[in-house]
Amino acid sequence: MLQGKVLVAQGGGPTAVINQSLVGVVLEARKFRNVSLVYGALHGVRGIIDEDFVDLTQETTHNLEMVGETPSSALGSTRDKPDLKYCQEIFRVLKAHQIRYFFYIGGNDSSDTIRIVAEEAQKANHPIRCVHIPKTIDNDVMLNDHTPGFPSAARFVTQAFLGANLDNRSLPGVYIGVVMGRHAGFLTAAAALGKKFPDDGPHMIYLPERTFRLDAFLTDVKRAIETYGRCVVAVSEGIHDDSGTPIALQLARQIERDAHGNVQLSGSGALAGLLCDQVKDRLGISRVRADTLGYLQRSFIGCVSDVDQREAREAGEKAVQYAMWGETNGSVTIERTGYYSVDYRLVPLEAVAGKTRTMPDEFIAASGTDVTDAYRLYLRPLLGKSMPDAYRLRQNRVAKILK
Amino acid sequence: MLQGKVLVAQGGGPTAVINQSLVGVVLEARKFRNVSLVYGALHGVRGIIDEDFVDLTQETTHNLEMVGETPSSALGSTRDKPDLKYCQEIFRVLKAHQIRYFFYIGGNDSSDTIRIVAEEAQKANHPIRCVHIPKTIDNDVMLNDHTPGFPSAARFVTQAFLGANLDNRSLPGVYIGVVMGRHAGFLTAAAALGKKFPDDGPHMIYLPERTFRLDAFLTDVKRAIETYGRCVVAVSEGIHDDSGTPIALQLARQIERDAHGNVQLSGSGALAGLLCDQVKDRLGISRVRADTLGYLQRSFIGCVSDVDQREAREAGEKAVQYAMWGETNGSVTIERTGYYSVDYRLVPLEAVAGKTRTMPDEFIAASGTDVTDAYRLYLRPLLGKSMPDAYRLRQNRVAKILK
Repeated sequence: MLQGKVLVAQGGGPTAVINQSLVGVVLEARKFRNVSLVYGALHGVRGIIDEDFVDLTQETTHNLEMVGETPSSALGSTRDKPDLKYCQEIFRVLKAHQIRYFFYIGGNDSSDTIRIVAEEAQKANHPIRCVHIPKTIDNDVMLNDHTPGFPSAARFVTQAFLGANLDNRSLPGVYIGVVMGRHAGFLTAAAALGKKFPDDGPHMIYLPERTFRLDAFLTDVKRAIETYGRCVVAVSEGIHDDSGTPIALQLARQIERDAHGNVQLSGSGALAGLLCDQVKDRLGISRVRADTLGYLQRSFIGCVSDVDQREAREAGEKAVQYAMWGETNGSVTIERTGYYSVDYRLVPLEAVAGKTRTMPDEFIAASGTDVTDAYRLYLRPLLGKSMPDAYRLRQNRVAKILK
Repeated sequence: MLQGKVLVAQGGGPTAVINQSLVGVVLEARKFRNVSLVYGALHGVRGIIDEDFVDLTQETTHNLEMVGETPSSALGSTRDKPDLKYCQEIFRVLKAHQIRYFFYIGGNDSSDTIRIVAEEAQKANHPIRCVHIPKTIDNDVMLNDHTPGFPSAARFVTQAFLGANLDNRSLPGVYIGVVMGRHAGFLTAAAALGKKFPDDGPHMIYLPERTFRLDAFLTDVKRAIETYGRCVVAVSEGIHDDSGTPIALQLARQIERDAHGNVQLSGSGALAGLLCDQVKDRLGISRVRADTLGYLQRSFIGCVSDVDQREAREAGEKAVQYAMWGETNGSVTIERTGYYSVDYRLVPLEAVAGKTRTMPDEFIAASGTDVTDAYRLYLRPLLGKSMPDAYRLRQNRVAKILK
């Protein structure tokens, strides 16, 4: 085993359980005698470049456990997407601080960063074990059955639509809920798990894996209104026309691009407004309401899957074990082994770095606007225990007297 | 005691605990021998006019208990605001169905409806006991310490800002969260209860009880960024300029008015977008994000105050007891009797009907953009037990080597 320090950092958008992975790394690493100190970098790779390190060896186990249950990256995060020069600078800092183990908790972009850093270390013949620990609410990391962070966000989306459906049933009209997920529809699809009774919404679900056609959407809404007297719709922020242009762009007056070159689709509510206007203007429906679930779905405190917490923790622990007892760099993945059980594997960084996974066809109904039972079976165990449930009054109708 | 039937209905926007009051009425009313049947009207007063009644005497106690824990009006609701003619029609139906007790669970508008119906019954010398049971997430019913529905919505807002603050701390920038409440700022102010550490957000809270000045807002944001490197803002949807014009109207291209003559401020996200644009354009800050908490704050399932559940249930039970054992119509109110304990009173319908309560000055800080400790003491016990809490890592900084 390499003698030296451990460095852990968190990148990208926060999740409800990202600190479980952090705590898993820290507590496990502190058990190994070859580890002298455990550092955390503040605000991801940006904190490495700036040498903004905290010594997590001096943190109490108790406080680490409490931080583990707190959502959103406790070390801070970054949207920096390092290029080769940036990664070389990371390597220079790791070397100067005698870091021998580098753990980066993040999504696709973060796995690519750690891949380049690992290559730099190899080229310089200066061994640093590099392990990527996945997290993303989008659930779009390759080779994973699912990624930590997704189950809790999915639980939020499920509960949100469960409530929105009840609200819409109470005051009928059209309700549109916009869910995060640029390329992968896993999170939007979670809205389907809020359905209990056959007439419950969401009545349609629009995913980025399928082309969005405004006319078909309006026809679907009209049909739902005719059938149910109301309509609940779940829409991914990433829906696009057949040229790949996001529908949101048709309204957005100002296109903001973040450092990753991705169009900024969250935090504007533009898509919800556009769709509302279309339903009002073209279908003549007056009661049309929309919510953009926004940042709540990744940071809401108090809506978390216990399965997600446990797995995020284990992914962090396993990362350290693979780094210490193993001989290779890699990315920790979650493999489903039963109904419901999982195990963890270490796969080459190249296998996940910079790639994006989307919903498999078997999860999407032939209509293109619903999920399949295969998806329901996939998601249900991830949501964890004590899922809230909705009940209805029996409709023992009383005979009319005056009419 | 009057012999005959009981009718219960639910009006206005749903809440997380409105069915507790319904169940309180039904279970309590079914105990009285002078009550022949308990009816529920579907979709509030609209269901009375249409004679859309369900017989709740045939409902099981068990299912009623489960419905009690389900958010959003189980009987359905309405936005109809009855005029005199409409109320006369209500009275005609109540009389035809031999209704002797009428319970209406709703806000200010609903209490006014029941007041007019009671007057019609009196004029016709046909006794119907009329009792209003308050509910509103806005907390704006007169003579109540607070109203059922508000504590659970406040809990959602508190938890939402607690998470949003953690998210903003992880990826610094400006975050604006828009909260429901046209005239009363109670719900927006609940964002303050998410603060734990001294630098936690929300750093400013803008209430409809104070005039909103865009320049002052921008100055406040600038100061927060300089002080904390980030800024979290809670804004009421009802903020307005000194002429009383809602700030949201400055962006809304299309003003939709609901049947109450109130401007539709929810379901558009317009205010959030307007404020974001101002911060970006005039302060030159690029990372500006906003959420409109929207319908989630009143219908999210699984975020409820146990105090609120209990009180909503008791308000329904007490309404029946006042109607049966008492001699007058009225509105049930919640009175705070200790720290923390409450009791229920019956006040004249005229005392609450159609009136709106706003935040008292003692709850608003002199700055106008924060709450006082008096407000914190007021709200904390209402949020109920098992409130989630946020923890941080200790900042044991490591000395830099390269810089």
